[in-house]
This record gives sequence, C-alpha cells and structure tokens, in this order.
Amino acid sequence: METLMQIIKGRRSIRRFKPDPIPEEDLREVLEAAIWAPSAGNTQEWKFFVVRDPGLKRRLASAAMEQQFLAEAPVVIVVCADLERIRRAYGERGTQVYALQDTAAAAQNILLVAHAKGLGTCWVGAFSEVQVRDALGLGQMMRPLALIPLGYPAQTPSPRPRRPLEEVVEYR
Amino acid sequence: METLMQIIKGRRSIRRFKPDPIPEEDLREVLEAAIWAPSAGNTQEWKFFVVRDPGLKRRLASAAMEQQFLAEAPVVIVVCADLERIRRAYGERGTQVYALQDTAAAAQNILLVAHAKGLGTCWVGAFSEVQVRDALGLGQMMRPLALIPLGYPAQTPSPRPRRPLEEVVEYR
Repeated sequence: METLMQIIKGRRSIRRFKPDPIPEEDLREVLEAAIWAPSAGNTQEWKFFVVRDPGLKRRLASAAMEQQFLAEAPVVIVVCADLERIRRAYGERGTQVYALQDTAAAAQNILLVAHAKGLGTCWVGAFSEVQVRDALGLGQMMRPLALIPLGYPAQTPSPRPRRPLEEVVEYR
Repeated sequence: METLMQIIKGRRSIRRFKPDPIPEEDLREVLEAAIWAPSAGNTQEWKFFVVRDPGLKRRLASAAMEQQFLAEAPVVIVVCADLERIRRAYGERGTQVYALQDTAAAAQNILLVAHAKGLGTCWVGAFSEVQVRDALGLGQMMRPLALIPLGYPAQTPSPRPRRPLEEVVEYR
C-alpha cells in the first residue's frame, strides 16, 4: 500500500484514457472521499454530476475548448457549487470564496483517491460555465467549477517540475 | 498505517492545541505535500507563510474574528495566492477562480498529511484579508486565502454529519 505522500506525489494529470469501465464500488468510494472534505461551517454546498452519456461528454469536451480527452474517459465528474446554499450561510464571501475552496478540497480528495485506486484524472478548469450549465440544464445558482474525467490511464506522464520550498515558503 | 480513505474520513477540525512544538521534519513534509497539489497550467501561484512568532499569531487570531485557538497552535500556516503570477498566465479567470482552487488543493493536502502524522489543523476562512495582509506586510497582489493552525490536538471531536451521497450526486 502506498503512503499518503506517495499518493500525493505520484498523482499526475491524465489526458488519455482506456475505454474500460470503472467498477461501481470504486466510483462510489471516490465520491465518498469528496463529501468528507471540509467545508465552511460544514455547509457542504457541493453537487457532483456523474456524466456517462457519450453525447453529454462530447458537449462537455466542446465547452472545455475542445479538450477531447474529456469525451474519451468513461466518466466525467462535474463538480459544482450550490451558490444559493452557501449564500444563505455566508453571503458574498460564501459565494466568492468558500464555494470555490470547498469544492476544490472535494476535488482534490477525488484526485487522490482515484489515483490510489489506479484511476487517472485531470482537473479541468478551463471551460465555458455557460455551456456546461446548458449541457447539464443547471440553474444560475448551480456553478460548475471543475470537470474531472475519470478512467484507467492510457499514458504515464512524468512529474511536472515544482518550485522549490525555499521559493514558496517564508518563515515569520 | 492508515489507508487514504481512513485519513480523509478521520480528519477533524481541531480548535484546541497542545503547546508541544512540531518536529521540523514533519513541518517540512506538510509543506512538501502542499506543493505537490495540482495547479492551473502548473503555475504554482501559492505562497506559504509559516508563522511561529507569538505576537504575529495573536494578530492573525484578531484578524480572524478573535478565534484565539489560532494563537494557541505552535504554528499557523497562512496560505496565499500570488495574484500577479496567475494573472499573467490566465487573466481574470486565474485571479478569480484558479487562485482560489489551486491554493485550496494545496491546503487540503496540508490537512491530510498533518492528520496522517498525528497533527491537528483547522481550515480558517473567516478573516479580514486586509488585517492579515497588514500583519504579514503583504502587497495587494498577495492574497491570503486560508489560515491553518497546526499542532498536536488537545481535543478529539466527533465527526460532523455528512449529507448522503444520494442528495449530492446526480447521474447523467
């Protein structure tokens, strides 16, 4: 079994997928990991759309500047924030900050558990929110914030370089 | 050794800390986990201020609506986004979305690795950004986005309830 650090450092962005389906049990555990992320005041303003329909996956790929690997993965998880729910609890700081942070923490859990199970993911943030909303039929207060294709990797990318700790950490 | 799922589900928000110092090796590994988070186009626009000075910790606690447990922890990590760095790469979507997501993914890694090492944390998002900037002497383009106290837990909170998967997941 890999240690947490090995999982964190071994995760890569995967952009080529095998067509093999994902076991239901694994998909469920990935989603379970997501909901155990922390959220502001435990508001849990997240919503996860699990997209398997081929036509819908193609629309998501188009909405994401034609990144076709989204359509290639057997599953795409669309991570959304329920802005109405977080606005009621925290007003503008909720919709502008916590909504993004809480769903990002959930997304990171998804990436890590998927990788631990031998599944590949890629955190896609570059997309038209309007087009994703249209594709999924979401209202104005359901904000799509990340598209995460999920499937068995058909590539093994090298690690991307990291800025050294000395450059990004300051002691006070 | 705990599994990743046990770590994810076992993590709690800790608001009471023992005064015991954190081993340098553990602190370094927590920061190392942070920089292995994904970021938009690998921009790595994060900056981590590791605060140990008692006076400075008290100022952070004041900035965070007098949440005094921040001053009680031996270390507070202030997670910031370098808005200039991400703006150059991605413009407004970078500063409004990716900056928050990338630092949140890094923060989640911090929480998980800390917990795996027996350290407690709490993701504090409710604070005056102006006051935190003043305390640390940060410019306008260095945005503080999370305060994370880090130390050995002096409490063992029960898990907070989670909305069931059926409520937050939709299949398409």
